[in-house]
Amino acid sequence: MKRTLGTCYYPEHWPRAIWEDDARRMAGAGLTWVRIGEFAWSRLEPEPGRYAFDWLDEAIAVLGAAGLRVVLGTPTATPPRWMIDRHPDMLAVDSDGRPRKFGSRRHYCFSHEGYKAECAKIVTQLAARYGQNPHVAAWQTDNEYGCHDTTISYSDAARRAFRGWLRARYPGPSNDGDIRALNDAWGNVFWSMEYGDFDDIDLPNLTVTEPNPSHVLDFRRFASDQVVAFNRLQTEIIRAHSSTPIAHNYMGRVTDFDHYKVGADLDIASWDSYPLGFLEDRVPATVAQQRLYARQGDPDFQAFHHDLYRAVGRGRLWVMEQQPGPVNWAPYNPAPLPGMVRLWSWEAFAHGAEAVCYFRWRQAPMAQEQMHAGLLRPDSVEAQGLVEARQVAAELAEAPEVSHTRAPVALIFDYDAEWAWAIQPHGAGLSYFELVFDTYRALRRAGHSVDILPPDSDALSEYKLIAAPGLMHMPEALKTALAASGAVLLLGPRSAARDGSMRIPVPLPPALPGLDATVSHVESLRPDTPVALESGGTIRSYREILETDAEVLETTTEGEAVVVAQGHLIYVAGWLDPDAMRRLIHVASDRAGLACLDLHESVRCRDAGAHRFWFNYGTEAHDVEGRTLPPLSVTREARD
Amino acid sequence: MKRTLGTCYYPEHWPRAIWEDDARRMAGAGLTWVRIGEFAWSRLEPEPGRYAFDWLDEAIAVLGAAGLRVVLGTPTATPPRWMIDRHPDMLAVDSDGRPRKFGSRRHYCFSHEGYKAECAKIVTQLAARYGQNPHVAAWQTDNEYGCHDTTISYSDAARRAFRGWLRARYPGPSNDGDIRALNDAWGNVFWSMEYGDFDDIDLPNLTVTEPNPSHVLDFRRFASDQVVAFNRLQTEIIRAHSSTPIAHNYMGRVTDFDHYKVGADLDIASWDSYPLGFLEDRVPATVAQQRLYARQGDPDFQAFHHDLYRAVGRGRLWVMEQQPGPVNWAPYNPAPLPGMVRLWSWEAFAHGAEAVCYFRWRQAPMAQEQMHAGLLRPDSVEAQGLVEARQVAAELAEAPEVSHTRAPVALIFDYDAEWAWAIQPHGAGLSYFELVFDTYRALRRAGHSVDILPPDSDALSEYKLIAAPGLMHMPEALKTALAASGAVLLLGPRSAARDGSMRIPVPLPPALPGLDATVSHVESLRPDTPVALESGGTIRSYREILETDAEVLETTTEGEAVVVAQGHLIYVAGWLDPDAMRRLIHVASDRAGLACLDLHESVRCRDAGAHRFWFNYGTEAHDVEGRTLPPLSVTREARD
Amino acid sequence: MKRTLGTCYYPEHWPRAIWEDDARRMAGAGLTWVRIGEFAWSRLEPEPGRYAFDWLDEAIAVLGAAGLRVVLGTPTATPPRWMIDRHPDMLAVDSDGRPRKFGSRRHYCFSHEGYKAECAKIVTQLAARYGQNPHVAAWQTDNEYGCHDTTISYSDAARRAFRGWLRARYPGPSNDGDIRALNDAWGNVFWSMEYGDFDDIDLPNLTVTEPNPSHVLDFRRFASDQVVAFNRLQTEIIRAHSSTPIAHNYMGRVTDFDHYKVGADLDIASWDSYPLGFLEDRVPATVAQQRLYARQGDPDFQAFHHDLYRAVGRGRLWVMEQQPGPVNWAPYNPAPLPGMVRLWSWEAFAHGAEAVCYFRWRQAPMAQEQMHAGLLRPDSVEAQGLVEARQVAAELAEAPEVSHTRAPVALIFDYDAEWAWAIQPHGAGLSYFELVFDTYRALRRAGHSVDILPPDSDALSEYKLIAAPGLMHMPEALKTALAASGAVLLLGPRSAARDGSMRIPVPLPPALPGLDATVSHVESLRPDTPVALESGGTIRSYREILETDAEVLETTTEGEAVVVAQGHLIYVAGWLDPDAMRRLIHVASDRAGLACLDLHESVRCRDAGAHRFWFNYGTEAHDVEGRTLPPLSVTREARD
Repeated sequence: MKRTLGTCYYPEHWPRAIWEDDARRMAGAGLTWVRIGEFAWSRLEPEPGRYAFDWLDEAIAVLGAAGLRVVLGTPTATPPRWMIDRHPDMLAVDSDGRPRKFGSRRHYCFSHEGYKAECAKIVTQLAARYGQNPHVAAWQTDNEYGCHDTTISYSDAARRAFRGWLRARYPGPSNDGDIRALNDAWGNVFWSMEYGDFDDIDLPNLTVTEPNPSHVLDFRRFASDQVVAFNRLQTEIIRAHSSTPIAHNYMGRVTDFDHYKVGADLDIASWDSYPLGFLEDRVPATVAQQRLYARQGDPDFQAFHHDLYRAVGRGRLWVMEQQPGPVNWAPYNPAPLPGMVRLWSWEAFAHGAEAVCYFRWRQAPMAQEQMHAGLLRPDSVEAQGLVEARQVAAELAEAPEVSHTRAPVALIFDYDAEWAWAIQPHGAGLSYFELVFDTYRALRRAGHSVDILPPDSDALSEYKLIAAPGLMHMPEALKTALAASGAVLLLGPRSAARDGSMRIPVPLPPALPGLDATVSHVESLRPDTPVALESGGTIRSYREILETDAEVLETTTEGEAVVVAQGHLIYVAGWLDPDAMRRLIHVASDRAGLACLDLHESVRCRDAGAHRFWFNYGTEAHDVEGRTLPPLSVTREARD
Repeated sequence: MKRTLGTCYYPEHWPRAIWEDDARRMAGAGLTWVRIGEFAWSRLEPEPGRYAFDWLDEAIAVLGAAGLRVVLGTPTATPPRWMIDRHPDMLAVDSDGRPRKFGSRRHYCFSHEGYKAECAKIVTQLAARYGQNPHVAAWQTDNEYGCHDTTISYSDAARRAFRGWLRARYPGPSNDGDIRALNDAWGNVFWSMEYGDFDDIDLPNLTVTEPNPSHVLDFRRFASDQVVAFNRLQTEIIRAHSSTPIAHNYMGRVTDFDHYKVGADLDIASWDSYPLGFLEDRVPATVAQQRLYARQGDPDFQAFHHDLYRAVGRGRLWVMEQQPGPVNWAPYNPAPLPGMVRLWSWEAFAHGAEAVCYFRWRQAPMAQEQMHAGLLRPDSVEAQGLVEARQVAAELAEAPEVSHTRAPVALIFDYDAEWAWAIQPHGAGLSYFELVFDTYRALRRAGHSVDILPPDSDALSEYKLIAAPGLMHMPEALKTALAASGAVLLLGPRSAARDGSMRIPVPLPPALPGLDATVSHVESLRPDTPVALESGGTIRSYREILETDAEVLETTTEGEAVVVAQGHLIYVAGWLDPDAMRRLIHVASDRAGLACLDLHESVRCRDAGAHRFWFNYGTEAHDVEGRTLPPLSVTREARD
Repeated sequence: MKRTLGTCYYPEHWPRAIWEDDARRMAGAGLTWVRIGEFAWSRLEPEPGRYAFDWLDEAIAVLGAAGLRVVLGTPTATPPRWMIDRHPDMLAVDSDGRPRKFGSRRHYCFSHEGYKAECAKIVTQLAARYGQNPHVAAWQTDNEYGCHDTTISYSDAARRAFRGWLRARYPGPSNDGDIRALNDAWGNVFWSMEYGDFDDIDLPNLTVTEPNPSHVLDFRRFASDQVVAFNRLQTEIIRAHSSTPIAHNYMGRVTDFDHYKVGADLDIASWDSYPLGFLEDRVPATVAQQRLYARQGDPDFQAFHHDLYRAVGRGRLWVMEQQPGPVNWAPYNPAPLPGMVRLWSWEAFAHGAEAVCYFRWRQAPMAQEQMHAGLLRPDSVEAQGLVEARQVAAELAEAPEVSHTRAPVALIFDYDAEWAWAIQPHGAGLSYFELVFDTYRALRRAGHSVDILPPDSDALSEYKLIAAPGLMHMPEALKTALAASGAVLLLGPRSAARDGSMRIPVPLPPALPGLDATVSHVESLRPDTPVALESGGTIRSYREILETDAEVLETTTEGEAVVVAQGHLIYVAGWLDPDAMRRLIHVASDRAGLACLDLHESVRCRDAGAHRFWFNYGTEAHDVEGRTLPPLSVTREARD
């Protein structure tokens, strides 16, 4: 696999006169890719049905002539102002019932049929015109689905579509659905919430107290499916005109839609990696960690998403937007330390990325992102990001090609579980994402390379150790596949705690084949009242009380079972703190025949093909297994 | 008085086939009562006017046949979905102007006449059918009035009703009210807020800055009266068909309506006691206390409500829902320590409860409360709550009957004062409830049994010591009755600080007969700037500066009078911290001829008939007056 | 200049029978002024078009007969209830889209033409009737423009008016504006935000993510201009009937409209000074400072506003409302320490006030401000405020007259910069006001008297030192005028960082003539990650990285330039902490030939004419330059 670099460019923002020079400088810096077009709808269709492609023809020609390969974006994330006149009800509606107005971006509801028809038209125009263009080497659909909390809409269009979705989910003898099946599935006899007809069903916002969790979970699944359908509309049109691969650029920790399902219709999963912005905004990190890594980013957050989206892309991963300097949108926006742009780039490659594109070529002097650094400053002078990008380009030219290899350890990430936990955290702030991320961090502190898998992966038998914490619902097929995998399994807490309709199953959870353990009851804990473990560390936040005949690996200081094992299966009856989690990973690795390291909190490694990459996110050097890792460094070495 | 136990059961949630077994197990565990029906409207009236009572007939028969006595609830807290089609404007409206939609419970506005007519119909049906049923031994109206902040609604129906209520409060020569009387009472000349007609008057939400406090206080009184009227509609219907006692199940620290007024139409005051949920959610406790009692609940919060609702029930008190294990709705939901369910049960009896019913029989596997423990687990296995309930049942069988006796100390709780403080706390977060609760806690730390009284109690002369802090408005009759009681009186701060229309009276407050003291001015204090007292402790949060010729019992370190006394009257010119409050209670008790204890913060006692009960909420044993109280224990002994 | 005292009085609140006595007591206490009328619309026009001036005639006559001079307010801040029936859409609308209802005050949108016509009518009536009244010696328009966040409205009226304002700002060949000019100015090509017509433009609320900052800045300028126009409507009417000076009473730290522009239509700038309320509510102070000065107020906040509003009033300054005791509206409302009312009064005079009027004469026993102290208690007994007012009156009688003199140091405050920072703080919580206030505090700790100037001041050459931090946009004329002033200039950070349309200019900022320094990039910092300076202290919150050939005065510990100087110009590339700011002020003063003091944090001084005033806000005495300042004192002495 050849590794490449690129950037994001907006020819429509700049005078025609400088396009050639920009293209020349991009190519000169060693960049291969240039993404364009994804916010340009008002320039492509200035009035309804009047198209203006000349400028884009010319931009593609100029960039192509410089040897660059174009990623062409569909502009559907930014419908022009006239669209709102044509479809006043196309705006998404927030949970308070307020339309989310024109004036920024992503101002559409995924369920609006009229808007979807408009999208089909512009995408058809673009695909027909550029589908065979030799310089257009990839497509991007829309931009950052779900960003700014746009997956979920409480609009009239969403309400209508949700009713239709439910009719299909609870099919009846006619085409009209079986409302009794829905009432049973949701347990609507509770609090007299029974419906007489699908048209009685509203969206689950603004209820007096919390809505039925089954209602909300179906709504969340519906909302996710609307994203899938919206994206598929575009991929089907593009494929009719082009055989070039199609990507979408996902965001970090946007979990409101099932990326695996969207990814199934795409060729490449790409994502937008903003390590510093994310650290302030959405990484599960302590304040001490935020302070320590304020200019480097979290040592695991980027890697987690590389591994996750590599699964979403079924092996094909890009970083479509890489932070090149300070951004504009986080609560605090410091500059990265020198060397970090290079480190982030190499880390992406180590985790299997084919390409890393920096956002953006030149800092825009206007509008919302004027404080977002580019590779160039607004005055076209080279910024720090370009210095490091050029260095990476030079290093890539020297580096051997690699093929990505399977890791020995798998970690399952399940969007449905994320929604179920969000709907019913039981304890304030408890989050499935954080539980999985805590596990991921512990695995990497132990030196493991990790593959993230969807819950319906057919590759479970390829791993020696599979961690799958917090899977609220486990279909029987998953239970069976895990048991059959032969891997050491790390399950719990909350495994199989709900059926497919968010009800507690009987027999009680986890009801795992081969494990004599039942969760008698559960409790959530105040952050200041963790439960101490006999071997050190604590259970914090969430805990299950087990009835079990299995081998007990960990107990509380009061002797209650916390971690139990039977055969290949290890069940963890609570949320472990880092001390206890470390011990758990070492025990599980040992049972799986995997050696562990004890890495410094700033140090990580990743195996890729014949090489092992070492990363030091810290500002001091660290010695690891006989080698010294300089501060803020990436080190590549041949694997043992 | 015979003390009994019970539980809450939802036959409509379970297969018909297990009803007999459930009933048998209830009776076998020593339970007497089973409450049913209060959320079942969609099963009782599946379509408008079509009733389905067969299943309920059968459920009552099955339960009755097992020897259980049924408490039958009216289902008006959960109108079915079809009701919204018939009365789209029946939903309450929140302070932001948004309708509070169908999809959970309590989705109605107390002022909607159409909905009230529907309630009258279903209650008539139930009362007529079951009014003479031999197994129906009590009624419950609706469920938890005011829960989820549902007393106050800003709907059109509420606006119309408020105008009518005001016309009646400010009567004019015709039936149409005297708008000038209202303008005078509210002081509407201020800021040109004068009204020309009652129909000009809006609800006091969404004003530019704070609305007129007189306007808000009348609105709060109106909202409370709407609850009273809503409840009375049901009691009048039930009484026409049944001579069985009627109860309502109040919540903890819901103070938006006047429980005394609702209680006047009922035979029994019952309440729903969730010690752990309340501690996280609404007890005035420090974080240290929340941590210390996370699995036991606050040592005073349950007792306070027992004493309050015993007054509301004019002596007849039940716990209709007793927490039996972890609940689902608090920020954190730990499991109670073993023994606490028993302790809570006995504490209720010690404070005069006739019955304690556990919520609920079996944990529901579906819908909003699926994480709420029951006496049985979802798989029908016995949970810890049932173990302790059975123990209590056995102990009750051995225990002598008691008749509740009057306590020597009274504490007045006034809902109108609670609203006045909420409208005008003067200092951020100041709350009448917390002031009264602080006083209650100090009285109990001093070993006193306490009766809580309404401000219009006719029993004032039965007490040796009466505490009545924070009574913002004191009608002349109350001032007179207190003076005539002969008791030592603990008044202040803010006593009689407003007239009945929320204006400052002249002569200035407190203007108490027999007390030479005038509040010259008041101030609220930052939490970090308390005022030190000469004898130790501080005034915190709220303070009055007195002009006085009375005896000065406490001064600030600067010599300003803080506590003054004259005759039987002690006036406290500020919010005392626990140190100063302890001293105050000891001095007042001494003047009243009452001996004091100095109980550990985890230990409380309560006299009931010939017995004294000791409670230890702590996890360590404590020695009190020569006896040792084991951890988490209740101890009954004969009174001296 | 003669210094005078006054008070605010509401004859409509009190029985006619006590007016004479009130007037007599006012005059007897040494008061000159009495402000009346400003909330009395419902009494002046009880029904549309029916006027009732008799009572006001009489009140003015009574007050005038006692020798008092009347300030007559227009009542437009409190339109009566009937006004809403005539103009239901006159209410302002909040950013969530909710009308801000009747029931308090300031319930109008500045853009509503119908309401403005009503205002014109009542002001015409008043001006015609009282314009030549011998007792009416000044006018006040409306009351506290912008208070309760009322400058900005998202109403339909505002939307219409904003479109018209934009047409005028971006003029086209016809009268209809040039939408392409607007699109260019705002950079609307970004995210396809281009408009086809001015009628496409909405107000910038409720967008999916942040709106275009250029859009918001124009909206903020528009909203400010609407206040100016609203006020001018009244001044033009009054001037047609009266030659008496006109004032408006501004609030503390209300910055949503450009006070200089409003002030240009007025004769006097007055403001409402509530030191204790402001300290809890809006002073940029640490918690430690809030605690230390809870009963005195911040030592710089009042002075800052005196100096700011003296500029707004082009030399003529009043305090129209002076806090006389505890207020009602802050989170905590302690009583001032004895002596503070006197100190505040004298401080106003030292900063050039002509008059100080206490709010209010007698505490109102009703409505929203019933907890707001007056000079009299509700029972007409003298309160502490009147004791001190009488003392000030006596001292004034003894004091020499003064003429205000120019200070040697100027500080520029620019409302446009305040809006630009608010729109784009880049780091959470960063505020232009706070940056200027930090600078002001440091200047005063150094013993300087300060004049605050508007950015278009024509007096720049009168100063030895001019500080102008944070001027986001600097028109070329300002750059030129500053360079030509001859003063030592303290600029930065963010100087000239944006053009007039909120775009980053190229060449990059600050592009100051005579300064070889370019901001390469900027960053905002977490509060817990300040950057240490080589000479001590830190940069906190906001920082610029410079490319510079200028003299470097301060560097980080890593050697990066932080403060640079060239000629008279000093540029500060970041937000300095107090330590570093102190050093900066001393260096700059030294270069300007100004001696510095190092005052205690509680001590300040101010030169006024031939005198120097010393103020001690602390509760302990302090020695300064050989003299002892008693606690809570003001000391006047002849200047050296």
